[in-house]
Amino acid sequence: MSKNGCVKSERHVLLTRYLAGNPFLTDEDLAQVLGVSIQTIRLDRAELDIPEMRERVKKMARGAYRNLRSIESTEIVGELVTLEVGREGLSILTVTEEMTLRKTKVLDGRYLFAQANSLAVSLIDADVVLTGTAKTSFKRPVFRNEKVVARALITRKKGNKYMVRVSSHVRDELVFQGKFLVFDLSEEVNRLENSP
Amino acid sequence: MSKNGCVKSERHVLLTRYLAGNPFLTDEDLAQVLGVSIQTIRLDRAELDIPEMRERVKKMARGAYRNLRSIESTEIVGELVTLEVGREGLSILTVTEEMTLRKTKVLDGRYLFAQANSLAVSLIDADVVLTGTAKTSFKRPVFRNEKVVARALITRKKGNKYMVRVSSHVRDELVFQGKFLVFDLSEEVNRLENSP
Repeated sequence: MSKNGCVKSERHVLLTRYLAGNPFLTDEDLAQVLGVSIQTIRLDRAELDIPEMRERVKKMARGAYRNLRSIESTEIVGELVTLEVGREGLSILTVTEEMTLRKTKVLDGRYLFAQANSLAVSLIDADVVLTGTAKTSFKRPVFRNEKVVARALITRKKGNKYMVRVSSHVRDELVFQGKFLVFDLSEEVNRLENSP
Repeated sequence: MSKNGCVKSERHVLLTRYLAGNPFLTDEDLAQVLGVSIQTIRLDRAELDIPEMRERVKKMARGAYRNLRSIESTEIVGELVTLEVGREGLSILTVTEEMTLRKTKVLDGRYLFAQANSLAVSLIDADVVLTGTAKTSFKRPVFRNEKVVARALITRKKGNKYMVRVSSHVRDELVFQGKFLVFDLSEEVNRLENSP
């Protein structure tokens, strides 16, 4: 145990609190924050019955995909991690070489757009949802093997229109921002289908 | 020959003029406009040594792809038809079922974005070009088998920044509009590579 480490019971409280705030913290991250070895963190997790990061995310993701209504799971770009329909969601895109432009080795902007757009649509609690407008800003180039964490939030609703804001980060750096105006067209489609 | 058809020499002049204005007119389109049969149009083309639409477009496309500098040909979404680097370009995307969303049968917006974005980048006469911001508007849903014709035009240049406007149509209907601010970063990259 490092000198900086606190006693086990305190550490267990802190560890649980940190993971509730950010389930993506790895054992390495936790060891650094709490000033103990990675082995100590592993033992703590075992005692607290907390699975490792990969397992935690997988478990959250299974729940997230079950909540989907407006879009098919295969149409989500990136991995959906959390989804609270009507409110907010989060997905992670791991950049592979095929997604990068050959000349610049930079992630093709269409993937950042598609990750954000598909996440924005997934937030809407309706069967027929389409994007109306999107204002997007590419803040810094993203490279192979980086993980892009996109967070989307419904910030306004007026009738059948929703404003969804998406911010995408690589670690703590903002790489993309978008404002998507999405429409719930379910009623319109119903009306068309039931009209003579 | 239809009663509405004009005499052959006049027709040849008109046909040549129409095709100069819009090389995508099919024999069916031309027959309708000129009030003659499709067979007549084919004979006219043969006499004037004008290949059929598909061939005309292919020929233009070969030239267009040769002009590419800022992006690889495989990274262009849609088929590049004309490209005048530093000025304007045109591409056509034929919507296949895989590109449509399963719930709504509508073309996934990411394809319209990617067609427009890749075309915008292709206009810039530089080796390192990245998109900074994009304001996009999805005007009407696009469906399977429709052909989306995107036209991009550089409307402003300031230093290493270019404003590119893209309008995408299915026949005469506007389906997408976008304003892309793209950056030529070649100098910056050169400076970084040559700095000690």
